[in-house]
Amino acid sequence: MTAEPTTTPSTSPAPADTSGAASRQHTLRERNLRLVARAVYDAAASGAATTPPSRADVAAATGLTRATVSTLVDRLVAARLVAELAPAPAQRAGRPAVPLVPAPRTVVGLGLEVNVDYLGVRVLDLAGDVVAERVERGAFHDADPGRTLGSLGALAADAVARVEAEGMRVAGARLALPGLVDARTGELEVAPNLGWSSLDPVPHLGLDLPVRVANEAKLAALAELAGDVPDSFLYVSGDVGIGAAIVVDRALFLAERGWNGEVGHVVVDPAGPRCTCGAHGCLEQYAGKEAVLRAAGLASDAAVGDLVTRLQGDDDVARAAVVRAGQALGSALADFVNLTGVSTVVLGGVYTELLPWLAAEVDAGLTERVLAAPFAAPDVRAAGAGKFAALTGGAREVLRDVVADPASWV
Amino acid sequence: MTAEPTTTPSTSPAPADTSGAASRQHTLRERNLRLVARAVYDAAASGAATTPPSRADVAAATGLTRATVSTLVDRLVAARLVAELAPAPAQRAGRPAVPLVPAPRTVVGLGLEVNVDYLGVRVLDLAGDVVAERVERGAFHDADPGRTLGSLGALAADAVARVEAEGMRVAGARLALPGLVDARTGELEVAPNLGWSSLDPVPHLGLDLPVRVANEAKLAALAELAGDVPDSFLYVSGDVGIGAAIVVDRALFLAERGWNGEVGHVVVDPAGPRCTCGAHGCLEQYAGKEAVLRAAGLASDAAVGDLVTRLQGDDDVARAAVVRAGQALGSALADFVNLTGVSTVVLGGVYTELLPWLAAEVDAGLTERVLAAPFAAPDVRAAGAGKFAALTGGAREVLRDVVADPASWV
Repeated sequence: MTAEPTTTPSTSPAPADTSGAASRQHTLRERNLRLVARAVYDAAASGAATTPPSRADVAAATGLTRATVSTLVDRLVAARLVAELAPAPAQRAGRPAVPLVPAPRTVVGLGLEVNVDYLGVRVLDLAGDVVAERVERGAFHDADPGRTLGSLGALAADAVARVEAEGMRVAGARLALPGLVDARTGELEVAPNLGWSSLDPVPHLGLDLPVRVANEAKLAALAELAGDVPDSFLYVSGDVGIGAAIVVDRALFLAERGWNGEVGHVVVDPAGPRCTCGAHGCLEQYAGKEAVLRAAGLASDAAVGDLVTRLQGDDDVARAAVVRAGQALGSALADFVNLTGVSTVVLGGVYTELLPWLAAEVDAGLTERVLAAPFAAPDVRAAGAGKFAALTGGAREVLRDVVADPASWV
Repeated sequence: MTAEPTTTPSTSPAPADTSGAASRQHTLRERNLRLVARAVYDAAASGAATTPPSRADVAAATGLTRATVSTLVDRLVAARLVAELAPAPAQRAGRPAVPLVPAPRTVVGLGLEVNVDYLGVRVLDLAGDVVAERVERGAFHDADPGRTLGSLGALAADAVARVEAEGMRVAGARLALPGLVDARTGELEVAPNLGWSSLDPVPHLGLDLPVRVANEAKLAALAELAGDVPDSFLYVSGDVGIGAAIVVDRALFLAERGWNGEVGHVVVDPAGPRCTCGAHGCLEQYAGKEAVLRAAGLASDAAVGDLVTRLQGDDDVARAAVVRAGQALGSALADFVNLTGVSTVVLGGVYTELLPWLAAEVDAGLTERVLAAPFAAPDVRAAGAGKFAALTGGAREVLRDVVADPASWV
């Protein structure tokens, strides 16, 4: 897990102390438990190369006494949130240090997703491993929301039953949807590619679990945190639409209702083609999946693999289509970087596969237009989280809440 | 002062407890002092209509015991951070409630600014009143940085001497500069309109005070918090260049180095005129002050008042120039809103005066292009903080730090 990846910029005041000394002690103990849990999880998140911390390392990292840390670690081990590995040979006299790691296959989080052509369920444990997964292909454009969400709920219930049968506890779920989701309420305002609007999706799932809803690109961005990314980055995912997220200090930027990153509708050319949104010359008309496929001489529902084959074969029309998309993307991403001040752009969705043919034009656009480029060169890279990244990001969010409040689990 | 207006999205972990029980007690007492100070200042910031809180009100707001609050208020009063007003007549039996307010003319903050055509110093007290001010007009394009900052430092030292002679304590200063300031280090990378680059300005001021440096538009945005604005807004200030800031939950959004809000270089039309930045069709070429004045048939260094006179006289060329600027501004602001998800835009600088003639085009652009407009209509309004807003914003930032850490002052 990661360093405090809260989903909202947390600027609210610290909660006031309740008045009794007993409850103050209680609050302090919970806070210390959180510090200890975070020390173990942060060390695990910082990469396999790091040696897992011992109780002494946790004491050093948190500033708590070794006796306090030992008591709290014992509670986390008893609750199966933290596991002890075999002791390393002692470096000096005394008891050998016991390495502490996030416990595998104990508490797990569920990532759920409805997208245009699949339903997905992925279950992650605290160690970050996938312990169950189910993806069903389908065609969900204009599908009935109740029935579709009911099917996803059934897949999820099945996964929950299986992992619970193995003794795991499910902490909750996140549902990813390709649309405008109100980050405060979880209401879906509109998902154009599903044809859904004004919907509270959670009851339709029929799950006896806490479920929260988020935009698909936002959760996919969080999946990148498991890899080697800077703490702040822009995530831009190309599909029929273009989704995006702003990650700052390993947390989603979600001002107001979290309706940000609409890079697909940034102005590329006011004289350009009319967009589905009604305006002219939006990025989506140059660099959306269907626009690129059509410009390359393919059917708008062709597979991106077909485009890649043509690009590898030096097909001129395909090359020109991708160069045009890259130029438009460079222009719109320069606006995104200039406006947010975040200088790393992670390209997901179809852009990951197309990046070798897009990169030169995107880089040129950023170099030309980003004001701060001479002082902090923009960095464009391919997403690393793989297929169905929103499932991973959603499950990680559930587990982040567990680590942020371990007292509820011990 | 305002509700926790931190300057960075605070997502870092809470500081670890140091191990001794004594130091834990100390930390707790400081935190409680901060809660009490904040309760008094938040009440004052929430508007003159609110009755100042009594000790009992503070206890209710913070969840601390009345005895604890009374002790802490006494400390804040003794340190002259909080003042007691005459007691209101008792509503019931017992001692009458003593209203608590931020203390006037005791601890003060300094706002400093170098801009293209003036040097400024403004001193604000905790009650939000200006207790000293000095603005000197001049021409500072290509002025020697050492000499210019030295002159500003002399103005500031003079103001400090005067307020200290009246018994006030100066908590520190913020220096506003029109350029790329690294929010982490306070280094100025480049201020094109001053012709300055790669500079640490603070030593040149020669002040014996803690001084921090920030971008001018960022500090001007914070000055809006004294008025009636939503907690999150985009601030866009028109001058020769166009500066901007993103305010979220009453704090500046400052990802990475805080180099955001470069709305002046958002693409309006790739076939448009070449910009000073080297790219084509940037907003600045349509809606920057010089571009608008020239398009209106005025000299590029004419006063904006001259343009307003022509607009009031229904001069067709002037009207057309402002319509063109408004269309470009509408397009670029739509990108800004779509990318950040912040739906209120506060227009400062020359735009405040020009807004009556810009508003229709700006509104039309936002309505056409902002995806979430049907669910959260964008709101465009004039800035309210008046002239030299960055001076006010800078002084407020200094005082915010005082309220956030009152223990250093008692």
